[in-house]
Amino acid sequence: MGIETAISESRLWTLLMELARYGATPNGGVNRQALSSAELGARRYMIAWAKERNFGVTTDGIGNIFVRRNGTDNSLAPVLTGSHLDSQPTGGKFDGSYGVAASMEILAALDELGISTRRPIEVVSWTNEEGCRFFPACIGSGVFAGAFSLDSVLPLMDPDGIKLGDALAATMKGMDLDAAVRPASKPHCYIEAHIEQGPLLELANIPIGVVTGFQGGCRIKVEVTGQEGHSGTTPRRTRKDALFSAVEIISALKQVAQDQDDILRFTVGRFEVFPGSPNTVPGRVVFVIDMRHPDNTVLRSKADEVQQVAMASAGSCSVDVMEMSYRPPSGFQPAVIDAIRQSAAALGVTHLEMTSGAGHDAVQLDKICPTGMIFIPCWRGLSHNEAESITPEASAIGARVLARTVVVLADR
Amino acid sequence: MGIETAISESRLWTLLMELARYGATPNGGVNRQALSSAELGARRYMIAWAKERNFGVTTDGIGNIFVRRNGTDNSLAPVLTGSHLDSQPTGGKFDGSYGVAASMEILAALDELGISTRRPIEVVSWTNEEGCRFFPACIGSGVFAGAFSLDSVLPLMDPDGIKLGDALAATMKGMDLDAAVRPASKPHCYIEAHIEQGPLLELANIPIGVVTGFQGGCRIKVEVTGQEGHSGTTPRRTRKDALFSAVEIISALKQVAQDQDDILRFTVGRFEVFPGSPNTVPGRVVFVIDMRHPDNTVLRSKADEVQQVAMASAGSCSVDVMEMSYRPPSGFQPAVIDAIRQSAAALGVTHLEMTSGAGHDAVQLDKICPTGMIFIPCWRGLSHNEAESITPEASAIGARVLARTVVVLADR
Repeated sequence: MGIETAISESRLWTLLMELARYGATPNGGVNRQALSSAELGARRYMIAWAKERNFGVTTDGIGNIFVRRNGTDNSLAPVLTGSHLDSQPTGGKFDGSYGVAASMEILAALDELGISTRRPIEVVSWTNEEGCRFFPACIGSGVFAGAFSLDSVLPLMDPDGIKLGDALAATMKGMDLDAAVRPASKPHCYIEAHIEQGPLLELANIPIGVVTGFQGGCRIKVEVTGQEGHSGTTPRRTRKDALFSAVEIISALKQVAQDQDDILRFTVGRFEVFPGSPNTVPGRVVFVIDMRHPDNTVLRSKADEVQQVAMASAGSCSVDVMEMSYRPPSGFQPAVIDAIRQSAAALGVTHLEMTSGAGHDAVQLDKICPTGMIFIPCWRGLSHNEAESITPEASAIGARVLARTVVVLADR
Repeated sequence: MGIETAISESRLWTLLMELARYGATPNGGVNRQALSSAELGARRYMIAWAKERNFGVTTDGIGNIFVRRNGTDNSLAPVLTGSHLDSQPTGGKFDGSYGVAASMEILAALDELGISTRRPIEVVSWTNEEGCRFFPACIGSGVFAGAFSLDSVLPLMDPDGIKLGDALAATMKGMDLDAAVRPASKPHCYIEAHIEQGPLLELANIPIGVVTGFQGGCRIKVEVTGQEGHSGTTPRRTRKDALFSAVEIISALKQVAQDQDDILRFTVGRFEVFPGSPNTVPGRVVFVIDMRHPDNTVLRSKADEVQQVAMASAGSCSVDVMEMSYRPPSGFQPAVIDAIRQSAAALGVTHLEMTSGAGHDAVQLDKICPTGMIFIPCWRGLSHNEAESITPEASAIGARVLARTVVVLADR
């Protein structure tokens, strides 16, 4: 009997709702930032759940949690699956939690059916995926994959001046797993289930997204410098209004970003005006452009246009354009995504091939082992939002495809 | 011999440079916010200056300083002249100080020539004109003119949570004038000399502005509400980007504000984006429009257009427009401004009639006595800026016109 038959929609939903109690907000979301007491609560819940079922639980230097179900040959590298339990300050109940809970549900279903897999299966919750408390994002998976050294991240500080190392020590103590350290070994492969955080699956009415890779992204900082002046006395003809120039620049850039197929993502999410007094003509504006596209040629060319467009639209102000980061698109190796496609097909579930718009722990794992992701639809594509929502049915379909994929890979 | 012959350009300039030492900044400006220790230094300098010359020095409940030179009939109401010693945090050496120093120079010149006036002359420095440490502006003159009660302003707090009452008590103690309280009596008239804080006199190459009144002004708050979304995943067609809507609204309003004669002052000085993360499509933008015009019909009609233009340009977002304040234009009574015109003419100095774009203590005094203002040119119209600058020659011409006007009015 296939593992998917034992995936329980109600048991999975109960697990999601139990996790959502940690850091719950009045508006139905969660504030469960990395290494906070709320996140520790969710960690302890996961650990207690594992111990009750006699699964091994270990951690590593950066506090990632690994729940292990042994295989028939435990000398083989494990299949790793999971996501993260931390959230944005006004986050939703499913970003991260869904992948952790769906993976836990697989272990429960395997036990229920008494299925043995050849390889061990490990369910992971990564530390500090969101990057909102400690910057950058994906620190736990990054340390695991060797992208950052542990020593380099321990001194990082949150906005209140608390060091990651100190917050981690408190969490480690609270988890009470001191003696149980995961041996440093590469996984056989990594699979992460996640809510889409975009509207494409919902709009297409398709339950599964097979993520073939990550779109590329860049951040460009634009600084517009004019001249402060008194807003009651300075005539228009002598003003150098940095805000009005920034408005013209963004209007022009919006035209550049207006691709017919709506694939380019163009956002100005940070925009700061100085000195910020109603009484003063703004002398300086700094804004940050976030641009993403799955085709590197398009992304590079659009990013390159910014400087020229900004200078042409700056009017009486001067403008300084700085590319802060550029990450080209990358595709997953075929091993895991082929297995996901085949599992969906075997279960008669339609799927959409897509690139991930957001970053995920899978980006880090892709550096050390074959990796893949499964997306499920979320309401209106909303995420990083307390109104984030999925249906129990969608959560179960995703878990069934994930379960079949994990078992197939664990038997290889 | 006319009083103007005794006005000393070098003595006045020395006085201005002495005052500029209090709160001096490395960039050549001053940070001498109201009731700070730097401002107390300037107050003590003014008081010592007056005592050395045997002028009477008094204060009142809100800490305004009055330096009095008696007339031949001290039962008559005094002619009041002056300005303020407080500055913006990155202010210049002349905003406020010029009017105080020019008035002090007049008393010195009167003594030098041994001139007696019929009425007493009082030189005033008003408390907290700028409104940057304690909001609103013009508190000292407002309390003097009865626009605010003393009790209503004492609990006001600065951005650090310090109460005006406590800062005032420290300043009062430091001034050491406890027993010398100015009798509550209306002045005969009020004259304030000030830098223009705009470029019109410099552009026209005219040394004196006769201020006939204040332009009207209004503040309008615009709140644009869209929907937060992930900047990597949300397609353009499903976005409700509050920043992009705000950009469209401001572009449209700029067209509305484009008057051919360049009289309307249209500024968006405060503009805040939420949540302000590069990773999130902005869900909310709040900005404040400052509009000013000397003709009430024009100002009212432009202010009324904002709502309709904002709604027409908001795209997929909703918009809320709120008029926070509206002050119609007002003209000074003729008594003082006629005297200024005649003094300038008698001294052979050309003048420009103008309305004041900025607010001043004279707005408050205008409520209780005939009032007028004299403007002098400042470099490029810059003010509220450390680069604020005037020439010694311009400062002396202004002081001569002020001196003659004060003496004429004090002899009436």
